[in-house]
Amino acid sequence: MLKLYIGNKNYSSWSMRPWVLMTQAGIPFEEVMVRFGTDFSSPDSAFKKTVRPINPAGTVPFLVDGDIVVSDTLAIAEYLAESFPGKALWPTDKARRAQARSACAEMHAGFRAIRNHCGMNIEADLAPQGRLLMRDRSDVRADLARLVALWDGLLAQHGGPMLFGDFSIADAYFAPVCSRLKTYALPVPPTIAAYVERVHAVPAVKAWTDAARVEHAFVVEDEPYRLAP
Amino acid sequence: MLKLYIGNKNYSSWSMRPWVLMTQAGIPFEEVMVRFGTDFSSPDSAFKKTVRPINPAGTVPFLVDGDIVVSDTLAIAEYLAESFPGKALWPTDKARRAQARSACAEMHAGFRAIRNHCGMNIEADLAPQGRLLMRDRSDVRADLARLVALWDGLLAQHGGPMLFGDFSIADAYFAPVCSRLKTYALPVPPTIAAYVERVHAVPAVKAWTDAARVEHAFVVEDEPYRLAP
Repeated sequence: MLKLYIGNKNYSSWSMRPWVLMTQAGIPFEEVMVRFGTDFSSPDSAFKKTVRPINPAGTVPFLVDGDIVVSDTLAIAEYLAESFPGKALWPTDKARRAQARSACAEMHAGFRAIRNHCGMNIEADLAPQGRLLMRDRSDVRADLARLVALWDGLLAQHGGPMLFGDFSIADAYFAPVCSRLKTYALPVPPTIAAYVERVHAVPAVKAWTDAARVEHAFVVEDEPYRLAP
Repeated sequence: MLKLYIGNKNYSSWSMRPWVLMTQAGIPFEEVMVRFGTDFSSPDSAFKKTVRPINPAGTVPFLVDGDIVVSDTLAIAEYLAESFPGKALWPTDKARRAQARSACAEMHAGFRAIRNHCGMNIEADLAPQGRLLMRDRSDVRADLARLVALWDGLLAQHGGPMLFGDFSIADAYFAPVCSRLKTYALPVPPTIAAYVERVHAVPAVKAWTDAARVEHAFVVEDEPYRLAP
């Protein structure tokens, strides 16, 4: 059986993507959680010592399929799309698929201000921090404007309810961003707020966020804005 | 005909990847260069005003195929691999392909210290800066160590001469890093130095770097270490 290694559900936005994708698509897998713990990003942390022998990149998530180790969310998404062609994980139309891959790749390497300043933190209410970020950081505002334009364009072009019609890798890819918009209460137009709610209602997204809320692990390194939950 | 929009050949590491890939694979395309120019990353620059109407992400490279606009190198690579299955742009073996996608995805979102501090600058000799970076920046040293381990492992496992045997997307993906290793004279073991030379001898890589050297455009924003060439 496929094994998906993930980090804490409350914090690990990258882990959320393939977990939500596989769960929603009904692809069976065993979940292996490697908790972040104290100082997890330092080279000698317990986290790195657990991950590195299996995935030399030292990151989660990664997927293990027998002898094959697939590291990184985009590589995992492509591996699953190839392995389960009947699941239509990418849009089946060539033009939509190209557009979906472009959007996911933009998320993968971009939106750095939102990623750096609005770390995923599902159980938290960080609306006050969100207001300060919107007031003080033009890069966060620019990322949000681009995100709104991207999603609005896709929803208008393809008619919803998800970015490319039916649920696809792209929605799994942006699910952690939907969570951030709620945690930091970033201001978005009603069309985007409605999409965020629809994503949160996707059963696999709900299963992940419900699990995150009862995790009760507080990782200081992932908490720039709080000293305790 | 496919149209590939790129930035300056001396500086645009992201543009180099699909250009080298398509050229080496013999995929015909029209090249459209959008020069970076002064202050190109600001929202109102001539560069952004040229790019945004075609590619709302505002970045190069992007590929235009009729009505389809594919933004971002990874999405372009997947689009080309799908469109030209006979070219074997990814390794044909499933396990190698998964490994190649993992390596490219790691490059896409990672190696940030090398990307931030050793910007591609093909015509420059920045060996003195490379020595200072190796002395002072543990993150650059860590990125380099990871890169050496990754390449050495792949070359040993698959027997060379390229990372997965024959030239593939992965080598196109790491070609700009090979260029950086030379520009900054970063210290690497002989196996890696030999791979770097083999990549530079790939005809498409040589064509790109030769063109970069005669470009003679000096973009201040891309020159943290020099005031003039």
